[in-house]
Amino acid sequence: MESLKEKKLPKATAKRLPVYLRHLKILDATGVQRIKSKEFAEITQVPSATIRRDFSHLGELGRSGYGYDVPYLIEVLSHILETNEEKKIALIGFGNLGKALANNNFRRNENLSVTAVFDNDPQLVGQTVGDHYVYGMDQLAEVVKEEGITVAISTVPSRYAQSAVDVIVDAGITAILNFAPDPVVVPKAVNIQYIDLTTELQTLIFFDTTYSQKTRV
Amino acid sequence: MESLKEKKLPKATAKRLPVYLRHLKILDATGVQRIKSKEFAEITQVPSATIRRDFSHLGELGRSGYGYDVPYLIEVLSHILETNEEKKIALIGFGNLGKALANNNFRRNENLSVTAVFDNDPQLVGQTVGDHYVYGMDQLAEVVKEEGITVAISTVPSRYAQSAVDVIVDAGITAILNFAPDPVVVPKAVNIQYIDLTTELQTLIFFDTTYSQKTRV
Repeated sequence: MESLKEKKLPKATAKRLPVYLRHLKILDATGVQRIKSKEFAEITQVPSATIRRDFSHLGELGRSGYGYDVPYLIEVLSHILETNEEKKIALIGFGNLGKALANNNFRRNENLSVTAVFDNDPQLVGQTVGDHYVYGMDQLAEVVKEEGITVAISTVPSRYAQSAVDVIVDAGITAILNFAPDPVVVPKAVNIQYIDLTTELQTLIFFDTTYSQKTRV
Repeated sequence: MESLKEKKLPKATAKRLPVYLRHLKILDATGVQRIKSKEFAEITQVPSATIRRDFSHLGELGRSGYGYDVPYLIEVLSHILETNEEKKIALIGFGNLGKALANNNFRRNENLSVTAVFDNDPQLVGQTVGDHYVYGMDQLAEVVKEEGITVAISTVPSRYAQSAVDVIVDAGITAILNFAPDPVVVPKAVNIQYIDLTTELQTLIFFDTTYSQKTRV
């Protein structure tokens, strides 16, 4: 499947792949082996014609009237989204969340690893905590250059997030995963993704409250 | 706007609201005040006719040829997704991630609060760590009933996630936010949402690598 990674997918298609993958994994876990584009459209809220067109970019994945093979689709999509190249990650902010992420080290993909940890707490900078030496934020640009780091994960709280992200961008990093949900401003060439736990929780509760089919006792 | 919360939105519309809200916040942060459904369709990958129909359920939000007011849309969507009722949350697993979530306490919504913390580590159970007393998992059903807890956040690692979720479901909880990304099996009446940090990171890197407009030096 190597050729798939080299071929550029339409960006709109690429954006939908993680959504497809997430829903396919849930189907797989509930024992669904085959799915038709119409059924998958209902689940993903993507029109079935779009799904068929997207999947056609990925090769011969389905047969007319038969549907798509769920485990095979998962394999293909996982392969496309997987990073085969080793990616070095700077972790910014070493509180509880930073520690959880540093130790987790994204186990499911061995090409993702936290290379260096940064904070600006004088009590932490220069210390080794667990396996991680903590650098000061003023050392970021230097360490990023030396280590060839291209990705940053920021666990810096919202009110300091913009200034942390400015330092990250100045250091030449172009991909940022931000755990502070308030949007920050970055140059066009920088990709930033937000993890917003309050919204995830609110969405869950909204569905549980509004659409629940339970009989309340 | 209270009537909106009482009126049931189509479930398909409701599912898209968090997606809309996330993109609107990013637009707002970059200074965009007004957006047409066609432009918004390109950003969200939702067809513009669907967007217009979804928004029509929310009242008079736009004018023909003028587009939608971004800050106002944010206000309306936030209001709908917000929990006005207090929700009590059980936090399962009190490692670094659990501690980060317990202390964060979902600040942006004061109706969300971690009511009780659970673990099955004998070194933790019965201890008070920071502000949190740690209960054993065998006390979950009892505490859930006493406190009126309806939501659980699980930070239990993948290999123990199914057995933790089984205990959570048996305790009568119907909304679960699971930080272990491998799908678990729950009854139909239970809503479960996954936070998959490896996939989020892979998606970010995929876009950074494949669609970057940067000139590499």
